Amino acid sequence: MTLPYKLTYFNVTGLGEPIRFLFTYGNIEFEDSRIDDFEEWKNKIKPTMPFGQMPILEYESKVAHQSLAIARYVAKKVELVGKNDWEDLEIDAAVDTLNDLKIKLSSFHYESDENIKKSKMELVLKEQLPYYLKKLNDQAEKNGGHLACNRLTWADMYLAGIAKYFNYVAQKDIFADAPALKKVCDYVYNLPSIKAWMNKSPKTLF
Amino acid sequence: MTLPYKLTYFNVTGLGEPIRFLFTYGNIEFEDSRIDDFEEWKNKIKPTMPFGQMPILEYESKVAHQSLAIARYVAKKVELVGKNDWEDLEIDAAVDTLNDLKIKLSSFHYESDENIKKSKMELVLKEQLPYYLKKLNDQAEKNGGHLACNRLTWADMYLAGIAKYFNYVAQKDIFADAPALKKVCDYVYNLPSIKAWMNKSPKTLF
Repeated sequence: MTLPYKLTYFNVTGLGEPIRFLFTYGNIEFEDSRIDDFEEWKNKIKPTMPFGQMPILEYESKVAHQSLAIARYVAKKVELVGKNDWEDLEIDAAVDTLNDLKIKLSSFHYESDENIKKSKMELVLKEQLPYYLKKLNDQAEKNGGHLACNRLTWADMYLAGIAKYFNYVAQKDIFADAPALKKVCDYVYNLPSIKAWMNKSPKTLF
Repeated sequence: MTLPYKLTYFNVTGLGEPIRFLFTYGNIEFEDSRIDDFEEWKNKIKPTMPFGQMPILEYESKVAHQSLAIARYVAKKVELVGKNDWEDLEIDAAVDTLNDLKIKLSSFHYESDENIKKSKMELVLKEQLPYYLKKLNDQAEKNGGHLACNRLTWADMYLAGIAKYFNYVAQKDIFADAPALKKVCDYVYNLPSIKAWMNKSPKTLF
């Protein structure tokens, strides 16, 4: 059987897992295509991607790119979006803030110059990360253990999906001092559909 | 008269102008609050912002942050969003791709080390910028002079609003070799409401 949705990404959690979580949560079957061979990616697949990046989502012979845009699309299908425009704004703002944090964390991870990497890493881990974690943790406390709207939304799914990547690049458990954020993640991981998904999905470095 | 919407940003175009364009396009009056004093910003205003950043949008004693989230919210009000979920995905992907380009362009602009700045700038201007411009220009050609959906959407408003900032940080007219993108911008600038807005708005460095 050919499934209507095909998601293609690397064989890691990263930017793909929030989307996989969303499909799974809504019981929407999808083809979980994973690129494992980096040489094949670089030489054969990357040049065929819309902007040289993954994930991409294929549906009815159309191709979409950009992980957040894809996640928002799936979130609509599985009803994890806002009940009105302002709620959507709050959810989008939470997601974009997590994405800002992701960019800061990635900034040193992919730096090739070891000296620059070290000084950047220090700036991010000692200043920027604690600043974001404190504010996001407060936000989760105010929203009853969720990032927005006092209930489960795709912002929570995004955080829970990308958390492993965050810890991998930060080289530590960044949620150790952010109990409300840890609670957001644990809430998602304990949803029966997500728990089953995590049990059966490939074990990867991050 | 107190207006229902208040947008606060620096006295430049940057991340604020796409939102100002959207309000203007939809004839929604808003308070256009501009912070001009950098010391006041740094010491007094920044610490009061949700994540230390602008723009913010105030409405009915609520405060929202994140420029793209705010722009998407206003785009819904002025009907410059998709006609279905897949169209919204295409618009969101175009906006996020412009945002990726913005992050790359900003990466060297705010770099304090002159040597790193120079090598970063060369990488961005000689490799990344042409790559993005070529693909985005093709996309605008395929969409009849728009970035998505073959018609005016908030992705076009976002590009036209942030174009001056792009040229400022790149230190050149990046649209000189991207005629279809220039056409997208010109289409927006020639909308009567936007033309009137640009004529009356403060003249700023970018």
